[in-house]
Order: sequence, then C-alpha cells, then structure tokens
Amino acid sequence: MYNIGIDIGGTTIIGGIVDQRGKIIMKKSTPTLPKRENGLIIADIIALCKSLVSDKSISATDIGTIGIGSPGTINPKSGTVINAANLGFINVPLGDMLKAELAHPIHIDNDANCAALGESLFGAAKGSANSVTVTLGTGIGGGIVTDGSIYSGSFFGAGEVGHHIICADGEPCGCGMKGCWEAYASASALIRDTEKVAGNNPHSLINHITNADMRKITAKTAFDAASMGDNAAKVVVERYIDYLCIGLTNIVNILQPEIIVIGGGISGQGNELIDMVENRMNKYMSLSDIKTKFVLAELGNDAGIIGAAQLGR
Amino acid sequence: MYNIGIDIGGTTIIGGIVDQRGKIIMKKSTPTLPKRENGLIIADIIALCKSLVSDKSISATDIGTIGIGSPGTINPKSGTVINAANLGFINVPLGDMLKAELAHPIHIDNDANCAALGESLFGAAKGSANSVTVTLGTGIGGGIVTDGSIYSGSFFGAGEVGHHIICADGEPCGCGMKGCWEAYASASALIRDTEKVAGNNPHSLINHITNADMRKITAKTAFDAASMGDNAAKVVVERYIDYLCIGLTNIVNILQPEIIVIGGGISGQGNELIDMVENRMNKYMSLSDIKTKFVLAELGNDAGIIGAAQLGR
Repeated sequence: MYNIGIDIGGTTIIGGIVDQRGKIIMKKSTPTLPKRENGLIIADIIALCKSLVSDKSISATDIGTIGIGSPGTINPKSGTVINAANLGFINVPLGDMLKAELAHPIHIDNDANCAALGESLFGAAKGSANSVTVTLGTGIGGGIVTDGSIYSGSFFGAGEVGHHIICADGEPCGCGMKGCWEAYASASALIRDTEKVAGNNPHSLINHITNADMRKITAKTAFDAASMGDNAAKVVVERYIDYLCIGLTNIVNILQPEIIVIGGGISGQGNELIDMVENRMNKYMSLSDIKTKFVLAELGNDAGIIGAAQLGR
Repeated sequence: MYNIGIDIGGTTIIGGIVDQRGKIIMKKSTPTLPKRENGLIIADIIALCKSLVSDKSISATDIGTIGIGSPGTINPKSGTVINAANLGFINVPLGDMLKAELAHPIHIDNDANCAALGESLFGAAKGSANSVTVTLGTGIGGGIVTDGSIYSGSFFGAGEVGHHIICADGEPCGCGMKGCWEAYASASALIRDTEKVAGNNPHSLINHITNADMRKITAKTAFDAASMGDNAAKVVVERYIDYLCIGLTNIVNILQPEIIVIGGGISGQGNELIDMVENRMNKYMSLSDIKTKFVLAELGNDAGIIGAAQLGR
C-alpha cells in the first residue's frame, strides 16, 4: 500500500508516492505560479494528484489516501484553507474541491505540521512520542507532534514558535511585532547581523569571503569566517547561538519534547551546530533539566511530502 | 460515586471527597511539616486518605479512586516522585507506598497539572479541549491540558511557563537563570518593581498606602495606587501588564489553547486584570491571531484537590 503526499510551496507544488516506510518511490512537480486565481492553482494540484495516481509504477488500487500540506492556517477537520496569504487562498474548501475530482480519501494540514509529522514518523524524531520540528530559514517555522499526532491547538495555528517573543521591545519582526525569536534566530536575522558586523569591521574575513560585497553575505558566511578564526564573525556566531538557545529553552520549558528537530538553511552547519547548541543550553537551563535531545532534520525538503502522505493514517 | 483528591502543599496537605460534578463534599487536612523525614510525611498522607475513606458522610464502596497532587517532578506512570525539593522527596515510589496501605486505585501527578485539570474539567476552562492554567504567585506555575488530558511532555516537566525567557540577559530569576517570565510577571516581581518605584517617588500614593513602610508593599499595592490616579503606580502596572502579555503571547503562539486560565494572587484583581490583558495583547499579536480567551481561575485553592480526584478518570 502507498499514499500520496503533496507539498504546496510558494514556487513549486511537489507530489510523491510514498511507501509505508516513508520512502518516496516517485516524485512529480508543477509550478505554483501563486499569483494566479485560486481555481487554476487547484486545477494543477488535482492534475498532479491524478498524474501520480495513474503513474505506471504502481496500481491505483494500491494508493490509500492523498494528503496535502498547504501553507497558512488549515482546518484539517473540514479540509478548509482558512488563510494562505502566499497563495491568495482565503476560506477555500480545498478538501471538498479535491474530493469532487479524486476517488481517494483526502486529508489536509499545514505544511510545517506535515514536515514535523514526517520527521516524527520517519526522520530525525522517529520513535519519539513528542517532538518539535523547528525550521531556521527566511523565517522560523515550527510543527508540534504530541503522542505521535500533529498538535495544532484549538484554532489550527499552534506551533508558531518563530513569533514567540524572546526580547521585550526588541528587534522589529516581519510580522509587525517586536522581539520575536524569528527576528534573532532565523537565517535572515543572521544575515542582517553578519552585514552589520561586516560594515563595522572592514578587515573581517567576512569581507574577504564576500569580496566586500554585502549582497554575497549568506547565513553560511559568519560560520565560515568564524571557523577561519575571524573574531568579528565569532562574535556574530556566538550571539546567534545564544538567541537560538533562548528559543529552544523556551520550547523545552513549555513543551519538554523528547526531541527538537532542527531544519532549514541554518541546519546546513550540521553536527557542529548541534554541538554548539548543546554546549550553550546550560546558560539558559540547568543541565539536569535538559533532557530533550537536539538533532538535525533528516528528510530535508521531502519531509512535507512524507508527512502529508501520512495524514490519513 | 466519589473520588478522593489530595493536594500536598508546602504547609498543609489537604484532601477532599469530590463528587462527579467536581464538588468537594468533605475536606480534611494535616500539616505538612516538610522538614520531617519522608516516611513521616507519607504516613500522614496515608492517614489522611484513610480518614477520608472512612468518613461517615459516604460509604467506602462509593469511593472510586484516590488521586494525589504533589509538588515537583512526578512520573504518573510509575507513581514516582522523581524530585520534590520542598518535601525532600527524591525518587520516592509514593504510588507503591500508598497502594500497600490503601485499597483504592492510586494516581499521582504534579500539583500544578492537577490544578490545570481541575479548571479544565470543572472550572474556568470547562468544556474546552485545550487549555493552559497559569498561576501568578510567588513564582509562575503552569499546567497544560490537551485533548482533555494533562500534557506533561516526555520527561514529566512540561508546562514550566514561568521559566521561559522573555528578555535575553534580563532580570535574574530565582532559578539561577536570567530573563525568565517569572522574574517579570510573578507577584514577587511586581512587588520588587513597586518597591523600586516607591523608593524613587517619595510622593507616590504607594507610600501613602503603606505609610512609607516598604515591607507593607504587596502585589495589590500598585494596582490600588494606580486606581487612585497615582502616576508612578500606573507606570508599574502598565509595565507589569506588558510583561504579563508577552508571556501570554508566547503561550498563544506556541500552544494556541482555547482558554488561558489565570490564577494565583495577582488574579485577585479580577475582571479588571482580564480587561487590561485583552486590551494590551494586540501590542504583541495581531488581533486576528488572538482567538484564545483569557479568564480568571474559578476553583481557587480547591483546583488541585478537584483535579487530583479526576486523575483516575
């Protein structure tokens, strides 16, 4: 038996046929073109599902359910996309629209929740009952799994860990508020801080790496310069790890999951990042209270597809 | 049918016979005397249970289960008190010790969790699936209920909302860390801030209310002086509400419960406190994202007994 998982991204809608062990055996995609009217985007989602169902690699009767991971606020019970600003979806009964065209049971949830479920069932948090998956990218996304299932709160919007406040009246955040974790520990925040330090330290290796072109600064730059011994970059990285650990502390104190999975661009730093986190957490929690494990995401961009495929389990 | 709920406090151990609607029909207590050796405290808990079971107001066969709310970290599955510093209990198999002496099924959980369960089943959060109970007292306690049951995380220590950090490198907290919510929004923090402002503003009504005796400042003083029009006190209260709302914002962003129940000494400010919170939350979250309701605790000091009585449900 197989399930289909669809991940609706801002640029590409990717779908996969996923086996019972969480392996994607076939993947197809179509551009999202999110500025189009809702109906056109939905028609392409349906076409992608049909194309996967009819794929010759398996029999259509071997497909169990179709799961959809969508950005925005999703009501999984009614299958409604309440609000997905990037797609221009507001109160779209996506589940019903898909059911009308497809023979298989349809399940929908938020994309970050799907990724967290994927990591929980088949990835870095496999075997744990309670886990939180944190994605350190342009923003900070989060998905909570409790007792093996997605926890989305009473209004389908839980897990917004990026917008919990770690610094009263702090840095402005893209959400319009101040002091959100995202404004300190996202890749964008790290780039902003790297730029500042590069500007103030003309001789920093940061400027050497980028040929003094600020536009070339990425979330990797400060880490690279720091590992080459650059003091200004070390300060940036140290401060970044501090902010990262403050948010992780808060997740541990509130939710105490067995595992926190760290994904997104910053997780490209690999085990070195995990080591830095583990060595810094005791600045914010007593060692005896840190029982949660911090691990790198394992499923990468496939986590959403793999998790979506399991929504109907 | 009735259940017995026991609340082990630092000063008094209180037990009650609780009916199926969460009403306490009989209450008895015994001093905790927490400096004693474990065995003596436990003997008194057993005696209190026996005294309630044998109480003439009901037949012993009408008692279903006995639930115990203990401070500290509790493993409800094994019935072990892993660590309750105030009682000097470390890895005490309290459940087994009680089972050896009592004929009824025994259930144990953390006292704050019991209070949250009580409010969830019979108090201010009645009817909601997901709620968080926050106690604003000497410290800040918390208990999380998801899907109608206590959520205590993977290591029985979830809900430590008081020690999530709202201000990087901020005020020192009793836990040894810095910037915890408790260091800003507990009754103790409010008293500390009131004292500071009173010292800097000799003509403030705060000093009038206390006859300029700092020792008379309570968590109520700033609220009282502010309501009499005192500007210095207004600043204290405004800032307090800001800090309170930052922590509440974080709980909403992470857990998005249907209801947050506010208890403890500060909740004595009543609906005025709720009004202030509701009016201030939009400084930290967009109005459309605030679906969680903020309500006053209803069960007061009985919440723990009432919740403990339901542990075996």
